[in-house]
Amino acid sequence: MIKESLNIIKVGGAVVEDEKSLSGLLMSFSSLHGKKILVHGGGKIATEMAGKLGVETQMIDGRRITSAEMLKVVTMVYGGLVNKTIVARLQALGVNALGLTGADMNIIMSVKRPVELVNFGFVGDVKYVNTRALVSLLEAGAVPVLAPLTHDKEGSMLNTNADTIASSVARALAEKYSVTLTFCSSIPGVLKDLSDPSSLIKTVAKKDFEPMVADGTISEGMIPKLQNAFDAINDGVSKVVITSPSDLSGGTTILADPETDD
Amino acid sequence: MIKESLNIIKVGGAVVEDEKSLSGLLMSFSSLHGKKILVHGGGKIATEMAGKLGVETQMIDGRRITSAEMLKVVTMVYGGLVNKTIVARLQALGVNALGLTGADMNIIMSVKRPVELVNFGFVGDVKYVNTRALVSLLEAGAVPVLAPLTHDKEGSMLNTNADTIASSVARALAEKYSVTLTFCSSIPGVLKDLSDPSSLIKTVAKKDFEPMVADGTISEGMIPKLQNAFDAINDGVSKVVITSPSDLSGGTTILADPETDD
Repeated sequence: MIKESLNIIKVGGAVVEDEKSLSGLLMSFSSLHGKKILVHGGGKIATEMAGKLGVETQMIDGRRITSAEMLKVVTMVYGGLVNKTIVARLQALGVNALGLTGADMNIIMSVKRPVELVNFGFVGDVKYVNTRALVSLLEAGAVPVLAPLTHDKEGSMLNTNADTIASSVARALAEKYSVTLTFCSSIPGVLKDLSDPSSLIKTVAKKDFEPMVADGTISEGMIPKLQNAFDAINDGVSKVVITSPSDLSGGTTILADPETDD
Repeated sequence: MIKESLNIIKVGGAVVEDEKSLSGLLMSFSSLHGKKILVHGGGKIATEMAGKLGVETQMIDGRRITSAEMLKVVTMVYGGLVNKTIVARLQALGVNALGLTGADMNIIMSVKRPVELVNFGFVGDVKYVNTRALVSLLEAGAVPVLAPLTHDKEGSMLNTNADTIASSVARALAEKYSVTLTFCSSIPGVLKDLSDPSSLIKTVAKKDFEPMVADGTISEGMIPKLQNAFDAINDGVSKVVITSPSDLSGGTTILADPETDD
């Protein structure tokens, strides 16, 4: 059975925060055919807003420590300001956008991260994606715009990384749709030569990964990104794309190994 | 044909801002049977947040002048902080809450109020309620939680009074459902004697209105409230209730005139 396609596009905070890259992204997103979901960040705006409100920002390994006060800030900024700004602008472009956090219709339930070496505070690790609710919204023609917020189903919102939201939703919906998961950021894809954008590698299959790590083509921050991409593919996602916001149809495509004839 | 019932409950900012009255209201709301919608305010929190951010609050006739900076504040506070706090808490009570602004699925489109004597800034007067989208969400079992925000379908959010949101949605949905529109605030209903809560008048029919204004039973701020209620009833809303948040099944019910036998 051929599954219907679903595009899940994740845009980082830096894209959302820059007017020019945001309008480019929203234009490209609006012209995508078929079912689609947008997942956004907004960390830089949250940090700025927290600063104005006298709430201290503390990051450990790139993750935000979320105190009760910071939870209010991210709920306002991600769930309100950034989400609704994107929704209103997509509506103007004719996209039937519907802004959601994990709490809405219990789309994404998480548990507060247990305190081990670090107390991350009100940070949620995804436990459950409400596939049925998301499918019913998609089938009704809505285009979900997901903020990086979840809830614990016990009355509290929780802060959850936007990449995690995008991957979790992609995996959950892979059963129903042929999912392409696209990560848009300032990194245009896997480059043979980091200083030369024209050295972009268009596709990476699973069998290529280890040799490319061994010969140094894939290094540093790109290693966990590709590892996550292959994890998603192992869980049923059709392909993962790493690209820049101005080029949704370009970048590097990460695929399962092609099937052989024997 | 007997229409299915729909309860639309509007809660003012003061209810939302007080923890005790909010939890009471959410408990009562969660125990309401059948289809329902919650509309909330949040003005006091917006004013507080604006103050912390150095954005000046200016009110004219009880309406907020909404500068570009104030629009950001209300989008954050109404659409993010207040809306998602309520949604998460209703989810914990087993209500399938879905937070929405007018931009989401183009639920409520408005036009920026023209500048006449006063420039209200980014304030929207409701032009269109997307009955079809709201009905599809209600039929899918969602419980919409509406923030007092609309959009202009040209890319901008707009600030819209919560009473207006509640009335507009009630009128639009009256064609499909038998709508009870309940306004919850510190005013428990129409009182014969303002200093005696036990003097509550349980029902006011249209024919009672003018005599009650003439004899002073209904006075001052209650006059426009009841006028608005009768306007809603003229537009098909089955009944309007004015009550306190702790007593959703009490208060004063405003009804059309009973049908006579002749």
